[in-house]
Amino acid sequence: MKIDVLSLFPHMFDALRESMIGKAIDRGIIDLQVTDFRDYSHDKHHHVDDTPYGGGAGMLLEPQPIFEAMDAINAQDNAPKRVILLDPAGRTFNHQFATELAHEDHLVFICGHYEGYDERIRTLVTDEVSLGDYVITGGELGAMVMIDAIARLVPGVLGNHVSAETDSFADGLLEYPQYTRPPEYRGMKVPAVLMSGNHQLINQWRMRESLRRTLQRRPDLLRHKQLTSEQQRILKELQADSDLK
Amino acid sequence: MKIDVLSLFPHMFDALRESMIGKAIDRGIIDLQVTDFRDYSHDKHHHVDDTPYGGGAGMLLEPQPIFEAMDAINAQDNAPKRVILLDPAGRTFNHQFATELAHEDHLVFICGHYEGYDERIRTLVTDEVSLGDYVITGGELGAMVMIDAIARLVPGVLGNHVSAETDSFADGLLEYPQYTRPPEYRGMKVPAVLMSGNHQLINQWRMRESLRRTLQRRPDLLRHKQLTSEQQRILKELQADSDLK
Repeated sequence: MKIDVLSLFPHMFDALRESMIGKAIDRGIIDLQVTDFRDYSHDKHHHVDDTPYGGGAGMLLEPQPIFEAMDAINAQDNAPKRVILLDPAGRTFNHQFATELAHEDHLVFICGHYEGYDERIRTLVTDEVSLGDYVITGGELGAMVMIDAIARLVPGVLGNHVSAETDSFADGLLEYPQYTRPPEYRGMKVPAVLMSGNHQLINQWRMRESLRRTLQRRPDLLRHKQLTSEQQRILKELQADSDLK
Repeated sequence: MKIDVLSLFPHMFDALRESMIGKAIDRGIIDLQVTDFRDYSHDKHHHVDDTPYGGGAGMLLEPQPIFEAMDAINAQDNAPKRVILLDPAGRTFNHQFATELAHEDHLVFICGHYEGYDERIRTLVTDEVSLGDYVITGGELGAMVMIDAIARLVPGVLGNHVSAETDSFADGLLEYPQYTRPPEYRGMKVPAVLMSGNHQLINQWRMRESLRRTLQRRPDLLRHKQLTSEQQRILKELQADSDLK
């Protein structure tokens, strides 16, 4: 997968190279290119932003440097591509959207900074995306989060295929509690069932705890999920339990 | 504001120093300390993770190094603090939550990697937080996004107070379209009203476009917002317009 990023802070993306995504870059599965679009400014001081028409605080990114940086990307690869603008007014990013983008050959991320973008920059864009209902100082961290979430779904990026498939959200339920050594730490013990070696009991316990956590914390996820009859039975028991309390 | 981070990839946080948050660190408004909790492992190979009890793919973070790294933080500052665990099963982060955390004196972020955490680590935590309904390979990017979103709300971090107050979400509506120079670029013109110099007309246009964008893209935001009678009137007009199409 080819990933282009247009950013005024290209070194921020070094952070991605520290993690599993860095290994996928080293192995050639992900080809990440970060372009400083300030290099495309025609201004003698390399300015890329200016004040908004109509007044108001802050600065806006001008269209010219970003349009010309996109021209250079399109000159190298003329095929249609997804061009993503990080913007609080965009479609909210989620697991399903990450899965959709993981099937693309070429993604371009345009990262803004300062107050915002000249509206005409949106004409270059196929997808305006928001990480969530909060504001961050620039698009870089948002692009990094999206690249991480998407790239880990690209085959070969994670060492272990099971890992992505047992994620929270991948099956529509939150993950069950997990424990590792030691069996007791500061007075807190690992549940006995997990050390029983009885895999049928362990799987039942995990399904029940996964449903319990989802019911307690994210009941909205249950409304969108097709439950098996066994899951429905457990869920009724859990609901009856919590009604008694 | 003091911010502690426990992470196995401390260098990823260098990315924060490139941006406005870096300036706030330089000016002493934000005191960011990143601790590699691998330094607290008693294991001779400095392992911090182990396989899950009961079987399953991947590795889990052990309680011991994280508990002892927290002990060290608490030994320096015994006051109550918010301890945040990035977890897909956590409360979804949003602007309101960022505002709440921006009033705290001391935040601690625990960043996991690998499959997950030993459940006992959650006993250290005051807030389990998710960036959104997607999964990333580690907690670092999530912590960086949260730190950025929170820190920019701390007085003095952004150069211009107006900036944070006119954000999308801050007033419950998406931002209106903005334009900067040139007045025409590749055939696309800046709306004439913005160059009229008539501030009453400009403000009316901006309010209308802000409501239009929110209605088109995020009608859910309108349900939670107290609209002025003028906003209600514009909204009815916009709805009538879109019903005609």
